[in-house]
Amino acid sequence: MADAYAQASGTIGFLNLHAASGTGNAMGGLTNTAACHTPVVVMAGQQARSYVPLDAMLTNNEAIKLCDPLVKWAGEPLRPEDAPVLLSRALMLADSAPRGPVYLSVPLDDWDKPANEATVRHLLDRTSSASPVAEQAALDELIDALREARSPVMVLGPGADTELGFSSAIALAERARLPVHIAPSPPRSPFPTRHPSYQGQLPSAAGALADVLSAYDVVVAFGAPIFRYHAPSDADYLPTGVRLFAVTDDPDEAARAPIGRIVVGDPSDALARVARAVDHTDRPEPPVRTPAAADQSGPRYAAEAILDAVDRGKSDDAMIALEWTSADLIRDRLTIARSHSLFYCASGGLGWGLPAAVGLGLGCPDRPVLALIGDGAMQYTPSALWSAVRYKVPVTFVICNNTKYRALQEFSELLHVPEGPYLDISGVDVCKVAEGYGVTAHRAESLDEVTDFVSAGKNQEMPRLIEVPQR
Amino acid sequence: MADAYAQASGTIGFLNLHAASGTGNAMGGLTNTAACHTPVVVMAGQQARSYVPLDAMLTNNEAIKLCDPLVKWAGEPLRPEDAPVLLSRALMLADSAPRGPVYLSVPLDDWDKPANEATVRHLLDRTSSASPVAEQAALDELIDALREARSPVMVLGPGADTELGFSSAIALAERARLPVHIAPSPPRSPFPTRHPSYQGQLPSAAGALADVLSAYDVVVAFGAPIFRYHAPSDADYLPTGVRLFAVTDDPDEAARAPIGRIVVGDPSDALARVARAVDHTDRPEPPVRTPAAADQSGPRYAAEAILDAVDRGKSDDAMIALEWTSADLIRDRLTIARSHSLFYCASGGLGWGLPAAVGLGLGCPDRPVLALIGDGAMQYTPSALWSAVRYKVPVTFVICNNTKYRALQEFSELLHVPEGPYLDISGVDVCKVAEGYGVTAHRAESLDEVTDFVSAGKNQEMPRLIEVPQR
Amino acid sequence: MADAYAQASGTIGFLNLHAASGTGNAMGGLTNTAACHTPVVVMAGQQARSYVPLDAMLTNNEAIKLCDPLVKWAGEPLRPEDAPVLLSRALMLADSAPRGPVYLSVPLDDWDKPANEATVRHLLDRTSSASPVAEQAALDELIDALREARSPVMVLGPGADTELGFSSAIALAERARLPVHIAPSPPRSPFPTRHPSYQGQLPSAAGALADVLSAYDVVVAFGAPIFRYHAPSDADYLPTGVRLFAVTDDPDEAARAPIGRIVVGDPSDALARVARAVDHTDRPEPPVRTPAAADQSGPRYAAEAILDAVDRGKSDDAMIALEWTSADLIRDRLTIARSHSLFYCASGGLGWGLPAAVGLGLGCPDRPVLALIGDGAMQYTPSALWSAVRYKVPVTFVICNNTKYRALQEFSELLHVPEGPYLDISGVDVCKVAEGYGVTAHRAESLDEVTDFVSAGKNQEMPRLIEVPQR
Amino acid sequence: MADAYAQASGTIGFLNLHAASGTGNAMGGLTNTAACHTPVVVMAGQQARSYVPLDAMLTNNEAIKLCDPLVKWAGEPLRPEDAPVLLSRALMLADSAPRGPVYLSVPLDDWDKPANEATVRHLLDRTSSASPVAEQAALDELIDALREARSPVMVLGPGADTELGFSSAIALAERARLPVHIAPSPPRSPFPTRHPSYQGQLPSAAGALADVLSAYDVVVAFGAPIFRYHAPSDADYLPTGVRLFAVTDDPDEAARAPIGRIVVGDPSDALARVARAVDHTDRPEPPVRTPAAADQSGPRYAAEAILDAVDRGKSDDAMIALEWTSADLIRDRLTIARSHSLFYCASGGLGWGLPAAVGLGLGCPDRPVLALIGDGAMQYTPSALWSAVRYKVPVTFVICNNTKYRALQEFSELLHVPEGPYLDISGVDVCKVAEGYGVTAHRAESLDEVTDFVSAGKNQEMPRLIEVPQR
Repeated sequence: MADAYAQASGTIGFLNLHAASGTGNAMGGLTNTAACHTPVVVMAGQQARSYVPLDAMLTNNEAIKLCDPLVKWAGEPLRPEDAPVLLSRALMLADSAPRGPVYLSVPLDDWDKPANEATVRHLLDRTSSASPVAEQAALDELIDALREARSPVMVLGPGADTELGFSSAIALAERARLPVHIAPSPPRSPFPTRHPSYQGQLPSAAGALADVLSAYDVVVAFGAPIFRYHAPSDADYLPTGVRLFAVTDDPDEAARAPIGRIVVGDPSDALARVARAVDHTDRPEPPVRTPAAADQSGPRYAAEAILDAVDRGKSDDAMIALEWTSADLIRDRLTIARSHSLFYCASGGLGWGLPAAVGLGLGCPDRPVLALIGDGAMQYTPSALWSAVRYKVPVTFVICNNTKYRALQEFSELLHVPEGPYLDISGVDVCKVAEGYGVTAHRAESLDEVTDFVSAGKNQEMPRLIEVPQR
Repeated sequence: MADAYAQASGTIGFLNLHAASGTGNAMGGLTNTAACHTPVVVMAGQQARSYVPLDAMLTNNEAIKLCDPLVKWAGEPLRPEDAPVLLSRALMLADSAPRGPVYLSVPLDDWDKPANEATVRHLLDRTSSASPVAEQAALDELIDALREARSPVMVLGPGADTELGFSSAIALAERARLPVHIAPSPPRSPFPTRHPSYQGQLPSAAGALADVLSAYDVVVAFGAPIFRYHAPSDADYLPTGVRLFAVTDDPDEAARAPIGRIVVGDPSDALARVARAVDHTDRPEPPVRTPAAADQSGPRYAAEAILDAVDRGKSDDAMIALEWTSADLIRDRLTIARSHSLFYCASGGLGWGLPAAVGLGLGCPDRPVLALIGDGAMQYTPSALWSAVRYKVPVTFVICNNTKYRALQEFSELLHVPEGPYLDISGVDVCKVAEGYGVTAHRAESLDEVTDFVSAGKNQEMPRLIEVPQR
Repeated sequence: MADAYAQASGTIGFLNLHAASGTGNAMGGLTNTAACHTPVVVMAGQQARSYVPLDAMLTNNEAIKLCDPLVKWAGEPLRPEDAPVLLSRALMLADSAPRGPVYLSVPLDDWDKPANEATVRHLLDRTSSASPVAEQAALDELIDALREARSPVMVLGPGADTELGFSSAIALAERARLPVHIAPSPPRSPFPTRHPSYQGQLPSAAGALADVLSAYDVVVAFGAPIFRYHAPSDADYLPTGVRLFAVTDDPDEAARAPIGRIVVGDPSDALARVARAVDHTDRPEPPVRTPAAADQSGPRYAAEAILDAVDRGKSDDAMIALEWTSADLIRDRLTIARSHSLFYCASGGLGWGLPAAVGLGLGCPDRPVLALIGDGAMQYTPSALWSAVRYKVPVTFVICNNTKYRALQEFSELLHVPEGPYLDISGVDVCKVAEGYGVTAHRAESLDEVTDFVSAGKNQEMPRLIEVPQR
Repeated sequence: MADAYAQASGTIGFLNLHAASGTGNAMGGLTNTAACHTPVVVMAGQQARSYVPLDAMLTNNEAIKLCDPLVKWAGEPLRPEDAPVLLSRALMLADSAPRGPVYLSVPLDDWDKPANEATVRHLLDRTSSASPVAEQAALDELIDALREARSPVMVLGPGADTELGFSSAIALAERARLPVHIAPSPPRSPFPTRHPSYQGQLPSAAGALADVLSAYDVVVAFGAPIFRYHAPSDADYLPTGVRLFAVTDDPDEAARAPIGRIVVGDPSDALARVARAVDHTDRPEPPVRTPAAADQSGPRYAAEAILDAVDRGKSDDAMIALEWTSADLIRDRLTIARSHSLFYCASGGLGWGLPAAVGLGLGCPDRPVLALIGDGAMQYTPSALWSAVRYKVPVTFVICNNTKYRALQEFSELLHVPEGPYLDISGVDVCKVAEGYGVTAHRAESLDEVTDFVSAGKNQEMPRLIEVPQR
């Protein structure tokens, strides 16, 4: 919830947890926060200082290690009066490029100790400009390559999904007539899906991705790891002769990229500078892609048909929390028209989507929020529905219920593993669970009903849920 | 679920998780497993070896650090054929004193690689006896002190809740006429609560605990940290003149104890040896304690009255999963007659109780299982109810619903923090949620109904739930 | 040696160590490398993959944790063919801002396994531009403050000691008539010490430093932490009314700064941009500082007199490895005329200076190298003298021998600790030790002899050592 | 020095280091301490509490992580008054089975804060008995196997080199007529080398070791990992039909053993109990081994001849610090007659031997100390010679000088790596270096001179050094 709140609001998320156990309960979600570079300060209570050496109940032992691979930094004050110092540091560090979560453990008895006034005055006054930009010489190399390319292409990742990045990517695509792909495993949607340049999402296996890029001679990527593959493959990363340039604000991503000329700096700033620098070309427009028509028949509907029905109903400025793996090309069937429109669990960590939808609504109350969630994904944290009710967050929940663990089923097929009983998750009455948490819910009888339900969501004041029977 | 399964069955729990995110989702529960010294092997999938350097989707970065403060050991095989070697090591280490969870990350592509046959043959054949016992000389010192004591007392912790420990503690209490206390913050119940020697649970604040022990001259503790305090206090740990002896199988607990003569070795074995060594005494019996009569009035019932109603209905051999903080002296009102009867989240990590009840039922199908869970505690993992249905585990769930976060409310009072809105968690229809997951549920109208419901649970084949309105 | 090699040559240092023990032997030095942001790849051998699970002799257990707080990243390949992938990543990451050491463990049996050819081809071709620069808007704020200041001052840290930074700092100081201080605890010397703007090094206690800065209204700092204090003080960091701006390429330094407006980006680039942006001012020149005359009397000489004798003999382009704590204002008495002239152990970790001198000579054979080392500091790694002989590195070693642990003596005085016997380290015959390692050595009888010895060093082909008796 | 002091004295070593850099300088040695299970408390100074958040000079950042894989526990007090609590815990934990080093970081300003008197009183009074012993049932299995064996063998590791273990091993060997091997890579020498049962040290390659053990049907091991191999081999660990039993006090060693029936408990106690339980047998005596005669010719001597010359001169109760890899069967040529006689760097970490010799002398002033050190090994920490002089520790240093890195040369041959220039370490005048540090030194002209020099060492009051030219 805090992660999505931070993404939607553009501020730093702040989360207060209960010692080690509370931190533990949040760590699944934290993998997504880390992978999405969301700035979130995770603060956890610690036992009283006197009790920590005894490992008293609720001691967070070796607190600075607890979230180690998931946070940029973890701290615990050596003195009570350093708690504000570390909190300020945590806030600033979370929001420095590359953004991400940080962790702070504060003993119980620190809260009634006095702070150092001079220190706090300095802390309140200090600022940090921590989004450094690419060196011009490095960007020039990329710009030259674009100019000289016969058949260039642009790849966009989550780091480009800012207002500046989104509009600059459109400008660059139009000036240079660039086809635009979304990087694989995308937690955000950084380009309008109805734009003629839009070519969909790159495949997540190294070989299949290389096949797509083999049609081009120069690839320019902004705000994406190179690449966030998923499906195992031992194929080569890129055909010989294809040159790849990439801009990222994460030096680790840069060093990890197995190919290319990587430039470290703010990707949105770079997009804007590159868009200004390139000339208009008269290269032919890239081909327009149209998703295949979906089978509309029921009573259990195809995932594609459900997506189309949702898209017909939703407004262009909707924010979508997505945790549903049943459809190929899921993002292509949704109309994305502006930045900050689509949010997915960046590490693939399940249980993120339902509370994320509530976080989006809290973080950006001006835009309608839609949750597209699978029946399995919903079971991790159904109590998020209660939070939506309690805080009057008018999320439109669309729960697609195919009564199975479909993502794992697909993986089992890919890996030639025989289907096991653990894939069948039938037996949950989704509507009853939702009503148990106070959310009005019903089961769709037709696709039109889905469209109407989503369309009506724009003017609601309370959360509502529709369960859609899926094949 | 795996934790409680291991505790109930006396075997090693085994848990397979999905990379970093799946591990993260389990880490709240893992804090309890660590604190209770439950032997559990946590195995997590890792991305394909070739993809790990790229941080491909679902890579578990620096996997051996992910659970660091919570596990005894973490490993990832450097070669596919070492996966069985590390798994065998993990199993053996989890089950060595002091027991606890271990972590093993295995890459996706290891599973279809051949193992080394000679190695596997050795692994299958090897064994470990890893519960060393106390040195006799050290035990003798404890025995001598008991003999010479004017007013000795026994304190029992979770490490004594074995069949041998339970029966030996009774024998020792009876031979030496020892009053018996349960150590504070107890995740298990190692002594019969209806035994005349039973004196209840020690308080969890250092000062209050010292006050209780000031009535004695010698304290002998078995299987408990010294002590697992909870409520903050700066008071002294023990009055001058009180001598404390303790036996634990955990050298860290021994080194952490701020007072006493600590002996490292299996506590149940030590109990048996001490019981054999001491002579019968004619010291007067300790006073018999009777909990105060509870207010029986409704329609919302006092926690004490609910406990009494449950106790009247339950059989003596029931196993109880407990996650409910509303009643003082909760354990005193329940009849505990044999070992392995009561299980509580050892680190205080919420969300443990509901799945733990299912794990108890799976781990020990011969004994009836009762879950005593608060309405808040139930919301972390309600899908455990679905597992109970799917695996036909006939747990009797008693959900005590006071519509508030009572533990935090008490702590707020203790710390003089004004009551906040976050304490009110009304608005959940517990029965509807349970029915959503397929469990028959209804709301109790009287205390007798609670007693009857619990009593009927002994012969059920499927889980059932009763919601009890609580003050 | 590798650290100083990298600093002197401007390339990435590369160090190969022997498993955990070899790494351990290097970890004292590594604290300096980390603190100085020197790009060094530390590679360590690991046992054969098959032996690691057994903890065979020379296994580096949990290798990725061994240097944890000291390196930016640590890795160990999951497959032999990933060793080049990780090595390439290590090189690139070490050289990304903020620069620093990284760690790579490689199993023994990986070296005769084949690499993946396509992968290696990509690795050889890829590049990274990883020194992003400050956002213009943030620099503008600093420039405006400089323009409007009545009494501004510049502070320079080690990050400004590049060719561009050094010349730009001079240009900026001259255009804006800025007095220039060196940041406290400086491992480098980023400004000419004979320049009229030079005002010496800031004190290392918070209070004393604030006193110096209270004379100014605007402080602009480049390439320094804010601040690397040393001597304990609870005083306020800065007087009210003094505004501080700082540019660093380390986001951690930025977040840690307790005061100021911090800008993340390459400090030398920022210096150049600021120098171009400010106008000439007719502010009066800052006062010229002249160190007090030193007492020249012998036969044991004052540290200041030794420094003056050395400075008279050395050439302006000498590189100096310094590990000697006996003199106040040690840097002020040495003529620094260009960048990369003075090198000190950045974390204060002793034993760095002697091998560092050899590393400087290996890394930059065109400039004469001078080592100014205390008699205590020399004892950590005297075998570096042998390396100088073996590799014909013509370092001029000046060993100042006061037969005591002077730094600790000063600290003892500061902390009112009575002088202990551990401060007396007499009894080492420095010249004999040096001769034992093959270095020509003798003991100075006069200060002129020191000057002549240093002066003669410019044209030597082999290392030479002079011991100077110090008070 | 602290490690050997603890080993020689039977007490806990205590070492005070200077923040992160001082700790780093000690970490090579610490790998040996960890591998030898020596109880040592490593305490390190930390900056003042107020300065730590700023990373002031000499801050030990994330101090509890710095020695992570090498220590059993690391701590830093959250309050000044907890420093004694953690120190007491550190001492107790270091000395609990399995013994080993622990780490404690204490801020500078804690030392003048008051301790809590009641707490300190409890700490001074508390004790711990932390060497639990094997369960009888598990030992019985081992005893039965011994009884029924046709051809049993005993293997001893460093954990059996206690007074009780040493004498019990002799008793057991004699009663059961067991041939006795020393476990590979032995840091200690737990059996008399002139005893008829003594069969030498097992080879360090898995295959060669299995070949030796194939002559037996039952192997009983005490106090050794199974096994500390060194030379890489993919051979099977043990032939089919050979049964292995082992007793260790380290649960990690037990879980890591790839073969056998492992019993956790104090190995010396187990040896004593097994020796009492087995009956006398009339099995034939194992064959007596005699090392081959050594080539006595000079002027550079064979390693074996040097060993023989040393052995002729040394007294039976000498303690030997060994760091010399030039001779096969080095331990077989030395007369070991009692426990605590031979000490080797347990992890193979170089630089340990010279200071270890001084530590032995300080820890056990009643026994003569001999240092057998290679010319290369001596160069890591020659200043230990100065400590020997300063503290009047009468070590007899025998430096065997073959002017090359012989261990690496052997490994290069084993791995078919061509010989490189880095193996030649000629050019050090060992005697001059020693004299530089104040130790009387000369170069041997004959083997008799070596014998005489060693023999004369028994009555010296100051350290002396002899350099022996070696082939």
